[in-house]
Amino acid sequence: MSSLVVQKYGGSSVADADRIKHVARRIARERETGSDLVVVVSAMGDTTDHLLELAASITDEPDAREMDLLLATGEHISGTLVAMALQAIGVPAISLTGAQAGIRTDRSHGRARIANVDPARVREEIASGKVVIVAGFQGATEETHLHGEVTTLGRGGSDTTAVALAARLQADTCEIYTDVEGIYTTDPRVVKDARLLPVIGYEEMLEMAHQGAQVMQTRAVELGWVNGVIIAVRSTFSDHPGTLIKEVNHMELRDKVRGVALDRKVAKVTLVGVPDQPGIARGVFDPLAAAGVSVDMIVQNVGHAGTTDLSFTIPAGELARTRKILDPVVKAQGFRELAASADVSKISIVGAGIQNTPGYAARMFGALADAGINIEMISTSDIRITCIIPAVDLDRAANALHKAFQLQVPEVVDPATGRA
Amino acid sequence: MSSLVVQKYGGSSVADADRIKHVARRIARERETGSDLVVVVSAMGDTTDHLLELAASITDEPDAREMDLLLATGEHISGTLVAMALQAIGVPAISLTGAQAGIRTDRSHGRARIANVDPARVREEIASGKVVIVAGFQGATEETHLHGEVTTLGRGGSDTTAVALAARLQADTCEIYTDVEGIYTTDPRVVKDARLLPVIGYEEMLEMAHQGAQVMQTRAVELGWVNGVIIAVRSTFSDHPGTLIKEVNHMELRDKVRGVALDRKVAKVTLVGVPDQPGIARGVFDPLAAAGVSVDMIVQNVGHAGTTDLSFTIPAGELARTRKILDPVVKAQGFRELAASADVSKISIVGAGIQNTPGYAARMFGALADAGINIEMISTSDIRITCIIPAVDLDRAANALHKAFQLQVPEVVDPATGRA
Repeated sequence: MSSLVVQKYGGSSVADADRIKHVARRIARERETGSDLVVVVSAMGDTTDHLLELAASITDEPDAREMDLLLATGEHISGTLVAMALQAIGVPAISLTGAQAGIRTDRSHGRARIANVDPARVREEIASGKVVIVAGFQGATEETHLHGEVTTLGRGGSDTTAVALAARLQADTCEIYTDVEGIYTTDPRVVKDARLLPVIGYEEMLEMAHQGAQVMQTRAVELGWVNGVIIAVRSTFSDHPGTLIKEVNHMELRDKVRGVALDRKVAKVTLVGVPDQPGIARGVFDPLAAAGVSVDMIVQNVGHAGTTDLSFTIPAGELARTRKILDPVVKAQGFRELAASADVSKISIVGAGIQNTPGYAARMFGALADAGINIEMISTSDIRITCIIPAVDLDRAANALHKAFQLQVPEVVDPATGRA
Repeated sequence: MSSLVVQKYGGSSVADADRIKHVARRIARERETGSDLVVVVSAMGDTTDHLLELAASITDEPDAREMDLLLATGEHISGTLVAMALQAIGVPAISLTGAQAGIRTDRSHGRARIANVDPARVREEIASGKVVIVAGFQGATEETHLHGEVTTLGRGGSDTTAVALAARLQADTCEIYTDVEGIYTTDPRVVKDARLLPVIGYEEMLEMAHQGAQVMQTRAVELGWVNGVIIAVRSTFSDHPGTLIKEVNHMELRDKVRGVALDRKVAKVTLVGVPDQPGIARGVFDPLAAAGVSVDMIVQNVGHAGTTDLSFTIPAGELARTRKILDPVVKAQGFRELAASADVSKISIVGAGIQNTPGYAARMFGALADAGINIEMISTSDIRITCIIPAVDLDRAANALHKAFQLQVPEVVDPATGRA
């Protein structure tokens, strides 16, 4: 039986006719090795923005169901064009909508979850010798009617489509093609000797992504983890093998800082003089959750004199909305004030097991102190230590930490096996 | 039971956000009269051209199936935007793809025929109080799979969608909104006192459309005729009642020239010195049909000395292709030559029964002769007399015939009943 490869090409990889033809040649080359191929595509470059603008020109509050039907056209367009480009170079191909490809979702328009993948049609097209192009980012609800409702999967949707198909079809590999060469120890635009990681664990990748490394969305990584799908992150525009995301058990790769994640666009909100009593936090975070503001780090220190300070971070773009939501709460609950700053950034060191290994936190704080950088908030998880620092210091902090944990030094690992 | 109205808005009616909002207000106004509404939309203005360009940038020979999936996005986009515009002014609405609306077709991609309309979903949405927007020009094949293949209906597809839905849902009226106020006695850009016809019969409308009046495509008229759907052609941008297309039995409206149809873009091909023997015509028209060249008038005179001349007309844009196809035939069969001209136009007088009423042909030829216009070919049907004339004479011919048959004089007819 020939091997089955699922590939996913992002919006920048199919941004225009030339890139689509390049992607087609890349697919054709993989096919010449004898692999069966399922290829998931995102919408072309700015198509989604253009569709969002169209909707905005009609109404400020577009209906989520209509929005999904509108946005789903973006991947129909790129999918058909990739199929045509393959056919033009003699490769049998067919493009399928998410619905046709059997991507069944719940009814949460705009952020649907994949409930099931019915692989019948995709398998049938593969069996007939075709490369199967699947419109990413979308699916359909299962209905008693013949045709369900079109849904979209929200941010990172196309990655999720690819991983879900790879899992259901028991693909040999799932390759995510993007405009970077893989996952780096930190942002290579900031730290000159940032190093490409040949292998990274799911958990580490999740934290890297959560903390600002934008190569892959977390839900696709989670789905890969749960289903044991080995994910290769590669560049559309080079032949570098990229980074494998997989279960990493090798001792040498554990208990070690693997990367420094940066998130520049963060705002910090502090509620000052919050009564130290039950129910207060809920009164703050319920309305934010209802408004869809994604709250990240939450820090509350031990109170004194009956009040405490409650701090949290949000995406910088959500600050105005958050103020609007919380100003009445501050008044109603008698907090002293709401202090906020959009001039902060988040920096994290990530590595499986580091929280249980003494010394990492101290080394991180020490390296930042040596660089004269003030730490405004701290939060930790099993595999991550995160600091909020002044935004102006982020680049220096990244370089300091990358050096302190010697991330420029290659691990000697066989990328195929993840073993040293 | 409230009345059911099917409306169709063409591409120019939904060309931008302002026009879409205008259409939404128009729909809302109709709904305030208590009608249930199903609204079929075409793609926005230049969307289809843009999609065709995209495909052309990838390949010269796009696969018909992929092309359909690509083009169908145009009506998904306009449909969702119209639904959003309605919701924005407080009118409950939902947009459905052709597939979701139950438009089932055969598998002829690019020119699919509607096989059946499954009205369940549309009826359900109407019953829930919504205006149902349906993406025109498209349908889906019925498959054992949950999701069939997306097909498009070819030219005039959205009109056909509207009429098919009106027939299946037993709508009270089917209103085709366009950028002209209805059907005129002739092209009002050419003849100043061209008159809007309050009523026209299906058969007459078919001939008018066949002969170049471009307001409605013939297949939608045919479908309306077969199913007895009364079609109103109206302007999106005025409140004029427009033209009703319906069965016209009233004596006063029969045996009378109703309109002058003009077709500027015609080429005439004459095969000179064709052997006057069986099978020759097939040898000419079979290869043209196979290449999809639509041959219109065919005229062959009585032969003499064993040969004859065979003339026919084609759309002007097909002339180069036609030459390429027929040049080898001319050589192989020993015809004297292929003479062609793209400098001709077609002018027709149309009216139910005129062919059986003596004098119309003579009056037509006489009016053209009085204007000094040479007739190059003549062809007639039950309800039409058509002449091929030099293209430079078309406007003068139109004015001469419009006047000769007194088309500027209104018929006194109640447009609701079609009676005088």
